[in-house]
This record gives sequence, structure tokens and C-alpha cells, in this order.
Amino acid sequence: MNFQDLQTYIDKRQALNQALTLFSWDQETEAPEKSMALTAKSVGLLSGELFKTITDPKVKEILLELEKQELTISQKAIVKKWLKDIRDLEKIPAQKYQEHQERLMIAQRVWQKAKLENNYQLFMPYLKEIVVTEKEFAQYRKTNEACLYDVVLEDYEPGFHVEELDEFFNQLKEHIVPLLKEIQASPIKIDKEYNYKHYSLNKQKEFNRWLAGYVGFDFKKGVIKESEHPFTTEFHNHDVRITTHYYENNLESALFSTIHESGHAIYEMNIDDDITMTPVGSGASMGMHESQSRFYENIIGRSEEFWKPVYPRLQTFFADNLEEVSLEQFVQGINKVEASLIRTEADELTYPLHIMIRYELEKKMFAGEVDFEKLPQLWNQLYQEYLGITPQNDSEGILQDIHWAGGSFGYFPSYALGSAIAAQIYAHMQKTTAVADWVESGDFQVLKKYLQEYIHQYGAIYQTNELLEKLTGEKFNPKYYIEYLTNKFTKLYHLR
Amino acid sequence: MNFQDLQTYIDKRQALNQALTLFSWDQETEAPEKSMALTAKSVGLLSGELFKTITDPKVKEILLELEKQELTISQKAIVKKWLKDIRDLEKIPAQKYQEHQERLMIAQRVWQKAKLENNYQLFMPYLKEIVVTEKEFAQYRKTNEACLYDVVLEDYEPGFHVEELDEFFNQLKEHIVPLLKEIQASPIKIDKEYNYKHYSLNKQKEFNRWLAGYVGFDFKKGVIKESEHPFTTEFHNHDVRITTHYYENNLESALFSTIHESGHAIYEMNIDDDITMTPVGSGASMGMHESQSRFYENIIGRSEEFWKPVYPRLQTFFADNLEEVSLEQFVQGINKVEASLIRTEADELTYPLHIMIRYELEKKMFAGEVDFEKLPQLWNQLYQEYLGITPQNDSEGILQDIHWAGGSFGYFPSYALGSAIAAQIYAHMQKTTAVADWVESGDFQVLKKYLQEYIHQYGAIYQTNELLEKLTGEKFNPKYYIEYLTNKFTKLYHLR
Repeated sequence: MNFQDLQTYIDKRQALNQALTLFSWDQETEAPEKSMALTAKSVGLLSGELFKTITDPKVKEILLELEKQELTISQKAIVKKWLKDIRDLEKIPAQKYQEHQERLMIAQRVWQKAKLENNYQLFMPYLKEIVVTEKEFAQYRKTNEACLYDVVLEDYEPGFHVEELDEFFNQLKEHIVPLLKEIQASPIKIDKEYNYKHYSLNKQKEFNRWLAGYVGFDFKKGVIKESEHPFTTEFHNHDVRITTHYYENNLESALFSTIHESGHAIYEMNIDDDITMTPVGSGASMGMHESQSRFYENIIGRSEEFWKPVYPRLQTFFADNLEEVSLEQFVQGINKVEASLIRTEADELTYPLHIMIRYELEKKMFAGEVDFEKLPQLWNQLYQEYLGITPQNDSEGILQDIHWAGGSFGYFPSYALGSAIAAQIYAHMQKTTAVADWVESGDFQVLKKYLQEYIHQYGAIYQTNELLEKLTGEKFNPKYYIEYLTNKFTKLYHLR
Repeated sequence: MNFQDLQTYIDKRQALNQALTLFSWDQETEAPEKSMALTAKSVGLLSGELFKTITDPKVKEILLELEKQELTISQKAIVKKWLKDIRDLEKIPAQKYQEHQERLMIAQRVWQKAKLENNYQLFMPYLKEIVVTEKEFAQYRKTNEACLYDVVLEDYEPGFHVEELDEFFNQLKEHIVPLLKEIQASPIKIDKEYNYKHYSLNKQKEFNRWLAGYVGFDFKKGVIKESEHPFTTEFHNHDVRITTHYYENNLESALFSTIHESGHAIYEMNIDDDITMTPVGSGASMGMHESQSRFYENIIGRSEEFWKPVYPRLQTFFADNLEEVSLEQFVQGINKVEASLIRTEADELTYPLHIMIRYELEKKMFAGEVDFEKLPQLWNQLYQEYLGITPQNDSEGILQDIHWAGGSFGYFPSYALGSAIAAQIYAHMQKTTAVADWVESGDFQVLKKYLQEYIHQYGAIYQTNELLEKLTGEKFNPKYYIEYLTNKFTKLYHLR
């Protein structure tokens, strides 16, 4: 028995997975309104086939045999990943798993209605039951003394636990919450009225296509389309698709969505040919993925170096609105700090505070310390405490995100981790490369090659901490992020 | 054992088929240039799974058992169709089938290059081998005294053989070839210069979307996109997609593509809920499908009744170009007869003559009566004989269509049959309904309901001749088509 015996199963797993990804891309971006119900039958069937393929007893036999053999690093990673998938799936009774999947589908529709009607009571029983079941599943999968929440964290961020995350969020609480209060008390008010003028959708589309190409999105291996919420979908390293959303009265929104999703896409396009179309042929973790998109969006994309060569072009494109707005004003505008209620619209500084709130609530829910009747009040209290504002209703409060309705507990922390990982990588690059010059001269090929060499090419062969250690010499360390945010915003708001 | 035992297999066949259809739609309309090679691996694997599902010995056992039982009409049709599929596939050695599929993939790329470089010699060896293999496969599948060409005809047009087609094309040769010569000799020259002025692509898109909806395309169950050559793709009766192609200097092209593909789409959207997502949940045959698209495109879409309410709108849309063009002029323009070399650009009268040439050549190739070295000359001779014009080179001659490179022999006749079937249905409707009034008053819901009641709802439960007999009281009869063309064009060109 050798690795070739596994290849047929890898191909089948990939083919089914790719078909399901395509169905999902198609539903999000194109499929007609009434197609869903019938198409769901086919999607359900193919999901079942994928489940059978992953848990096929013959595959397990091969994997256990291969585990004992000499393998290449990537082969070893594939075997390890697949065995983990099997162990996770085996422990949950198939019938319960299936029922839970169906419950989640319904819960997401109920959540949608509840959000629309500002009716938390409608969603509450579903949320309660989802938490119970997610905890039950985590209990089945628990292998050591870890707490239940650690089990789900591991799904998105292998190697990260409550211990590290508590340390991370405590630092945010200690440094960023007071920094925000200082900014809110500062007399400096940044004016960005220009951003909310009328910007033609067609011209925005044209500019954003150019912008994606400029930062390194390869149109021969990718597609840009539109959807309600921007996202990235990967089929393999030669087909990675992103969406963006254009608003007639908000120029920034699409610009930074485009750069953000391009960052995700560049990661996937850079993955090595040897591992694309295998179970390790995608990014290392949610957090590492998010680090790349936020590196492009925030660290690079909101810097003055970035806009020096690009802003004149933007100004020409939208001369009526931007003629009188200087580069300096524009760069201040895109970095303006303003506590707001909606996570997806948050600025770079307040964003992680939105995540911190969700992290604290998830931990409490998993620890059984939450009275679900009072969850909305708890949410609102935390917003007041960390951001200094309070939601007017549950739609912009406890009901704002779809994640819990979809059973995605343990997912949110990766969003904030991503920014922090990006800051750690950037600190290292500042010491060892001419990254600011690359950006100012628009040399994104060099940047892309650098990230490919140290991170992207490996896909999920290495874990996030392994990659960080190889590149920066240390595991994840939140101090770089705290320093980065403190320096940047202290300077912007002339504090201290 | 009952029909429910078959349902799991029907669902799996449908799911795999739907995934493959989606991959193909995606490749044609959206996938990035470099994605093909890797995606082809997944497509190949899923095709293999589909093949295995269709020929699964357990399915055969169930089907043979069901064949003996009392079933509903649609259940019976599904069993019959599936058994036929198995019998066809079983007879061809799997290895040879696989090799041939790969050869066809390569041949299509070679054909593309040969057409681009006007180099028939490049493509000739592939064509020769494809014909040899297609004949070999037909030989395996032959069940009675039929000739080999009958075997492939049956794939596209169950119930139609060389005998009926010879009769059909002979009538065309006898009546339409001389009619064309009369028209070519006529002093009446229709001026349609207006059609080749500049028409904004965006405005064309807007008008064509409206037009599709006007004739009955349901956007809640469908999508319109663009591609090089217009086509229709169906997933099930709640998801049918069409493409069109806009030219800046040709108004008609997109208009009639849109109506044509909408005709195909309406057929698929009208198929009964009980049979959609089953092996008989699609149109009855290629020819019946083409009859519906051509009914909408030509019989309805090129009539004066149709344009009476619609033309003023078109005129307003493109006032600069059409202000001075009267309804009468426009209707003459869209019906102008002009022998041309390219099938897909042919007018309603000359179109079937293009098909006749291909039919004659295919028969000769299958009878082994063709010297492949001289095939281009033979093609050119036939164009001169039937259409009075001769290609200047092989790209606009023997190399113009992709069909043979894809192994699609026996397919072309359906294009012409479609028009003739449409004329037969129309003749019956003229006698028994107020179809012209429906069209003039824009009442396309009534038309849609009529076609649904008599044809569409049944999908492939009945064969083409069965549907025609149920509706018009007789099997396929080419005389209606000859009469229709003769009347229409004699009048238009004031002949006799």
C-alpha cells in the first residue's frame, strides 16, 4: 500500500467538494430566486456522498497504514488532516449530525426573519437549542482536559485555546479600550463627508477591477462578481473568486472590500501546485487567512504609501467629488475612528472590540452562564462598556450576525486574530524588508512573492503558529498588534 | 421492490448530472481562463461517478423488476429511458468509450486551431478517426436492420430514421431550392442598412431583458447571461438559464437569439413538477426542443403581429437609428432572404439548406463514401448547388461548425426538423386557436399555457411523433413547413 492508493479518494473528495463549492458560489451570486428548493435536494445528496467518501472505511485503512510509513511533508499533512476529519465525524452520531444540519438551515431562515422584524424572541429558542447541541457535539469530540469551547476553537484555529485568546483579548481590553476613549475625547474630528457623495456604480466597478489587479489579483485565475456581503471562494489555485458590493453613496466600502477579498484570493492563488486539490490545499487557518486579507486591506491599504501613487488616479476617476480632497485628507478619512454598532462597518481600531464582545458571550454560553432571555441586555451592556454606545434595538444588537444561527461558534475570534497576526508579520517585515518602499512604488509582485515564499505556498501543511515561528522567530504574540494600533492612532489623533 | 427503490438512484443521477451541468455552464460563461485544466480533473471524476450510477448493476435489477409491474405513465417512461441508457452504454467497451471521450476533447481544441488558421489538413486525421470510432460504436449498438446512421439519429431524434429524413430533405430540395433561386432572381431588394448601425450594448441588454420577459421568460426561475454562442442550459424546471451575444453593429442578432433561447427556456420551465429532476424531466427530443425555440423566434418573432405592439418600443429605445424606419420596413428587414455561408447567421428560408448539406455529408461519411481529402470540395460544391455561393476558404466552409469535432453526428438534422415541427404545430393552431390575436395583443401567457398543456409539461414521457399525433392528429409531416415557407416568402417577394 502506498500514497497512490489514497489518490483516488483525494480526487473524489476534491471533486465533490468542488461541486458543492460551485453550487454555493452559484446560489450566492447568480441562481434564480426560486431555484433553491429543488437544487437543495442535489446539494444534500452530494454532501452525503462527500461525508461517505471522507469516512469510507477503506480510506481509514489506507490512512492508518500510511501513517506508519515514510512520507513527504505534504503527504504527512494530508494523512494527518484526513484522520482528524474522520475522528471528528466518527464521534458524532450520524443521525444527530444530520438533524443538526437541518436545524441550522431552518435556524438561519428564522434568524433572517427575526432580524428583519427585530424580534429576538423568535430566534431565541433556536439559539438555545443550537448551543446545547454544539456543546453536546464538542463533548463527544473532547479528547483531554480542555474546556468545551476549546474544542470548537480548534476547528477554526488549530493550536489556539481559551488560554491564548484570553491573554490576547485582555491586552486589547487593557490598551485599546482606553485608547478609544482618548480618541473619543480628543478635539480632533476628521471630516470625511466626501465619502458619502454620489459615486457612479459603473465607474466604481471599473476602478475596483483595476485596483484588484493592481494589488495582485490575477484575472486569468479568478473572477470578481457582486453579492450582498463580500466573500472569497476557492476551487483550486487556478480558480479563486471574490465578490464585492458597490454602494452609490459610499466610496470606501467597495474599495476596501475589494482589497480585503483580493488578499484572501492572492493567498489561495499562491498555494503550491503540489497540494492544490488536496485536503491541505487551502489556507492554514481562518485566522491566518484573515491575516492576509487584513494585511492587504488595513496595514497596506490604509497607509499613506499605498495611496501616494493610487490616489491621483482615484481623484481623476471621481473628479467632481474628490478634486478638493487632498491625499492627506483622504488618508485621514479612511482611518477615521468612530465607534459604531455594526461589526462589518467598523474601522480598524474598533473592529477587534466588536469581536471581543462576541468572544465573551460565546464563552459564557458554552459555560452555561447565560440566561438567554437576558442575552440582548448583556450584549448592549458590553457595547456600552467597550465602545461607549448602545444599540437601539436587537436587529443592530444581538441579531446582527448570522454566525450563531449557522452553528459557527469559535469562529469570531479568528477575525481579530487575523489583524493581530498581520501586525506581527508586518513588524517582522519592517525590520527585514523594504516593504514600505514596495508599496509606495506599487511593486506588488515582490510583496506577493514574499508572502508566497513564507506563508501562502504551504497551504495547510503547517499550522499558524508553525508558520509564524518559521517566519518571525516566535509564535503568535499580541504585543505587535497593540503596538501597531497604539502608534498608528496616537499619531493620527495627536495624542500623548 | 417498488418504484421508491429507484428513487435514491434517480436522485443521485440527477445530483451528479446537475453538478456537471453547472460546471459546464460555469466554464462557458464565467470560469477564469486558466481554471480549465484542474477543473477538468473534477469533471472527469464526476462523469465517471455518473456513468457508474447509470450502469450500477443494482439499478438494472430494480429496473428489470419494475418493468414487469404496474406503473404510472411517467414512471414507465423513466424505467424505459434508463434501460435504454444502460443498454447503449453496456455495449460499448468502457475503455474505448473513455479513450474516445478524451480524443474528442483534443479534437475540439485542434478544430479550434484549424478553423483559426484555415487549415483543414490539421483537423482531417481527427475527423477521420472520429468517424471510424462513431461508426464502430454505432455497430455495437445496432439492434436490427437499420443502417449505422440510423443508430446515431436515434440519439437525438427517437423515432426518426434516414427514411423519414430523406423524404423531408427531398421535399426541401424540390421546393425550397427553386424558391430561393426565384427570390435571388427577383428585382425586389430589401434594404436593411439600419440594422448595421451602431447600437449601444447597454441599451441592447436592457431591451433584450425586457423582450425575454415579454415573451414569457420567468426571471425568478431563470438567468440571462452572455457567451460567444447563445445557448440554453437547464438544471430543473425552476432553474433554466440562457445566454445571448450582443454586437455593437447588429441589432437583430441579439434580438432573435434572445427570443430563440427564451423559447427553449419556456419549454423547460413548463415541464411538470412530477418529472423535473428525473431522467425524463427535459424536452422530448432535440428536434422538439428546436421546434419550440424556432416557433418563438421565427414563426412568432418574425411576424408582423409580433412587432405591431413591440416595434414602437424598440424605435423609442433606438430613436437615432430607427426613427425613419417604418414597421413595414422593419418586418421586411428581419425576413430578408440572402444566401450566406455561415449557418448560424442564415435567414429563415436558407437555414434548412445549410442543414441539408451537412446531412448529406454525414450520410456519406457513415456510408464510407467520402474521400476525406476531398471533403472540402464536396462541401463547396453543395453550397454552390443549393445556395448559389461558394466559400472562399475552409474556415467558412467545412470547418465552420464544432459538432463533428465533438462526435455529434446525427445532431444537425434536428435543427431543420425543429422548424418543420414548429410549422406543423402552427398550422394546427391557426385552425383551432386565435394564435395570431394572442401574439398581436402580447398575450404570451395564453400561448405559454397552450404549449404547456399539449407539449411542454410532458418532458420526455412521450416521443416527438406521439406528441405531434396527440396534438395535431398526425405524425410528423413536412408538407406544413414547405407550405409555410412557400406562402410566406412568395408573398414577401411578390412572386407568382
